[in-house]
Amino acid sequence: VLTGALAAALPATLRGPSDLEVTTLARLEDAGPTDLALALGPRYRDALRATRAGILVVSPALSADAPAAACVLVAAHPERALGRVLRLLAAPPPKVAPGVHPTALVHASARVHPEARLDPYVVVEADAVVEAGVWLGVGVYVGSGAHVGENTALGPRVVVHAGVHLGARCVVGAHAVLGGPGFGFDAQGHLPHLGGLIIGDDVHLGASTCVDRGTLGPTRIGDGARVDNLVQVGHNAQVGAGAVLCGQVGLAGGAVVEAGAVLGGQVGVAGTGRVGAGARVAAQAGVTRALEAGGVFSGHPAEPNRPRLVRLARLKRLADAQP
Amino acid sequence: VLTGALAAALPATLRGPSDLEVTTLARLEDAGPTDLALALGPRYRDALRATRAGILVVSPALSADAPAAACVLVAAHPERALGRVLRLLAAPPPKVAPGVHPTALVHASARVHPEARLDPYVVVEADAVVEAGVWLGVGVYVGSGAHVGENTALGPRVVVHAGVHLGARCVVGAHAVLGGPGFGFDAQGHLPHLGGLIIGDDVHLGASTCVDRGTLGPTRIGDGARVDNLVQVGHNAQVGAGAVLCGQVGLAGGAVVEAGAVLGGQVGVAGTGRVGAGARVAAQAGVTRALEAGGVFSGHPAEPNRPRLVRLARLKRLADAQP
Amino acid sequence: VLTGALAAALPATLRGPSDLEVTTLARLEDAGPTDLALALGPRYRDALRATRAGILVVSPALSADAPAAACVLVAAHPERALGRVLRLLAAPPPKVAPGVHPTALVHASARVHPEARLDPYVVVEADAVVEAGVWLGVGVYVGSGAHVGENTALGPRVVVHAGVHLGARCVVGAHAVLGGPGFGFDAQGHLPHLGGLIIGDDVHLGASTCVDRGTLGPTRIGDGARVDNLVQVGHNAQVGAGAVLCGQVGLAGGAVVEAGAVLGGQVGVAGTGRVGAGARVAAQAGVTRALEAGGVFSGHPAEPNRPRLVRLARLKRLADAQP
Repeated sequence: VLTGALAAALPATLRGPSDLEVTTLARLEDAGPTDLALALGPRYRDALRATRAGILVVSPALSADAPAAACVLVAAHPERALGRVLRLLAAPPPKVAPGVHPTALVHASARVHPEARLDPYVVVEADAVVEAGVWLGVGVYVGSGAHVGENTALGPRVVVHAGVHLGARCVVGAHAVLGGPGFGFDAQGHLPHLGGLIIGDDVHLGASTCVDRGTLGPTRIGDGARVDNLVQVGHNAQVGAGAVLCGQVGLAGGAVVEAGAVLGGQVGVAGTGRVGAGARVAAQAGVTRALEAGGVFSGHPAEPNRPRLVRLARLKRLADAQP
Repeated sequence: VLTGALAAALPATLRGPSDLEVTTLARLEDAGPTDLALALGPRYRDALRATRAGILVVSPALSADAPAAACVLVAAHPERALGRVLRLLAAPPPKVAPGVHPTALVHASARVHPEARLDPYVVVEADAVVEAGVWLGVGVYVGSGAHVGENTALGPRVVVHAGVHLGARCVVGAHAVLGGPGFGFDAQGHLPHLGGLIIGDDVHLGASTCVDRGTLGPTRIGDGARVDNLVQVGHNAQVGAGAVLCGQVGLAGGAVVEAGAVLGGQVGVAGTGRVGAGARVAAQAGVTRALEAGGVFSGHPAEPNRPRLVRLARLKRLADAQP
Repeated sequence: VLTGALAAALPATLRGPSDLEVTTLARLEDAGPTDLALALGPRYRDALRATRAGILVVSPALSADAPAAACVLVAAHPERALGRVLRLLAAPPPKVAPGVHPTALVHASARVHPEARLDPYVVVEADAVVEAGVWLGVGVYVGSGAHVGENTALGPRVVVHAGVHLGARCVVGAHAVLGGPGFGFDAQGHLPHLGGLIIGDDVHLGASTCVDRGTLGPTRIGDGARVDNLVQVGHNAQVGAGAVLCGQVGLAGGAVVEAGAVLGGQVGVAGTGRVGAGARVAAQAGVTRALEAGGVFSGHPAEPNRPRLVRLARLKRLADAQP
């Protein structure tokens, strides 16, 4: 990408030559004369002034702080600039030539679309369905009767247990385990878990994340939900459309996270917990009851954040006043 | 299963035809005229009144709340009804035809029982022992000298490191790692971990759970223990018979959980921590010392739950009384 | 090893025969007449007095407490004795015969050193480099352009994504995922993550640990860092040389842990958090800001440990004084 084309695409006002080739990105601190670096907020001002980057994308407010020697692009929409630069600079996604590697084992009754790609050591069991444009990475396992929707990509060694339904355009990180039996027992031992797992379209699931299938009704992950690495989603949990679960979040069996809610890292939600639509829960909080839609919550048990902070500040003052 | 047979098996009093076929289960909210749904406690009363389920299993107290059109089974033992229904309705477990898939690699010195089943891409190292009725899922790895007891089932890609002893009738979720070297170092670097890992009979281990082997003596998981997904069990930890570790629990090296104790999700136990027999520890608590048998504990550091709640309530009142 | 040689190697003063063969280690409680057991601190005094171990290594202060029948080695440097005994007793590391297993798939453009060892079902993609002495366990995946440095050992099924740089003499536990795409999105969806992952020399990474690659600049793990199992390291996090991350720690995108810092189990560090060099953070704490080098911190949000404990004690007294 040349600087001129980049300026047009962002869009940005260009201060410098339009024919520099942009090939490598770096952080302001690390960048050299051939690198592009970004300074899109006031916290980057000092690093911007000191950078050796040859090409800079800056927010209008930082326009005066860029070193004079650099070719500078002043981004009209700084909040979108990072994504646009990354997408312009990213290598075109590897051509995923369709086809089934000779070491992949596909059951005769499975239906694998000719436009799907199966990498080495993939195993697809009986009656499973793999739609067009799907990419199954090295060693992916698709259990009997499972369904992998169009253009979904599963990273290396993802396990999709029997009967799981995965929608279209999902991206699943390496080693995720989808549809394992839930952690439910009675006096006779482990309960059969007949409820299945239904994952919508455009869902992002991180590496080594585990989502159990339901006991009776299904566990559900709604369209567009974003789930980070090492997250645990218990049997019959319900994750609404567009919800965000950061790293190491844990949802107990039956927990509910409504659409658009955002859970910080290591948050836990009990089986009695429900996070209302669009609510935000601070990292490490523990949700034990229903939290109102749109609110901000923290602590264990999680409660509205503002009054909690006020109370903690008052208690700190009380303690400080003690002899 | 016909409704009459189901009524006899639960047992339950049947109100309606005895010859309806029960094939699909659903939750009260989702069920339709051909589904079976359950309402086994007062919290389901409203959903029961509104359900469209054609067949219902209800507790005696809810007997009058079931819609008139449904075929109703009033369960004599509601606390057992869910498990019985699930077990009656579950497809018979897949016939696990014994045999070694041609892609499985078994060392000449390993001893694999002819009644064991080894799925594709399994690897069994030297001197390992795999007993009768064992099922090794796709890509399971059994290290040298490890022992997998009768009728134990390992999910896809479970790693059993060298020398680990796994008892009979265990169930291990996909991607669990058993017997990895512990996280112990001295000034010279990583310590050899010679202590091994001994897992009893009837143990349930969840997906992506990691259990390290001991430094000197073994790490031990007792008979009938139940461990959920993404749990970390450090070197030389001791988990007693029938103990329950919910999702994302972490036991540091040397931690002790005595028989029958129950740890909620994301609980951590330090190397100095010991949870007494039958004690219950609330989710996200942090155990740093010995907790008395049979007690209920919460917080970080974990302490008896009741006085802790009293103290927190008093502090809340104190804070609220501040200007 | 004979007792005389062991006494010379530790070094220790020998009280008993020098020609006993030491073959098995056990804990004081479990040991029998042919086992070696250690008692290296006062907390072991009672167990030492009651042990049936035939051979004992004890600290000078416990010298008088060993049963008379045992052969006793009084260790001059008790703090080093455990490591030395373990290293002397450990079986010599298995001979890692170099070579590529016939089922391993190596792209024609990859460069695999003839002194490397590739176990069954390994996959090495285009342009990857595997140096001398490397051991790739069963099913390891090395993405295109990735680099695995000399004498590094990857456990079963480790995933090294495209472009990751791993240094020399690293040890990585089973199922770790290195260099997966970070959890970064904008309004258009998932961001390309172009920043890579650079792991230094002598790094220890535990089982099922996930380290994401950076968005722009790289994620970095410094030389000699020690990371336990099930740890999450987000995109662009920086882990300094010799830092220690215990089990289930989570670093959000951009979090910084400086050299030599030690994070207890289940600690979380926000993207705004920075742990200063050599600081210690107690288990389950939550780091949300910059913590001073060398300090000791606890709580959520993490703060200096000592004044926090004073405050908590005062609040407890205040609450107890309430009616």
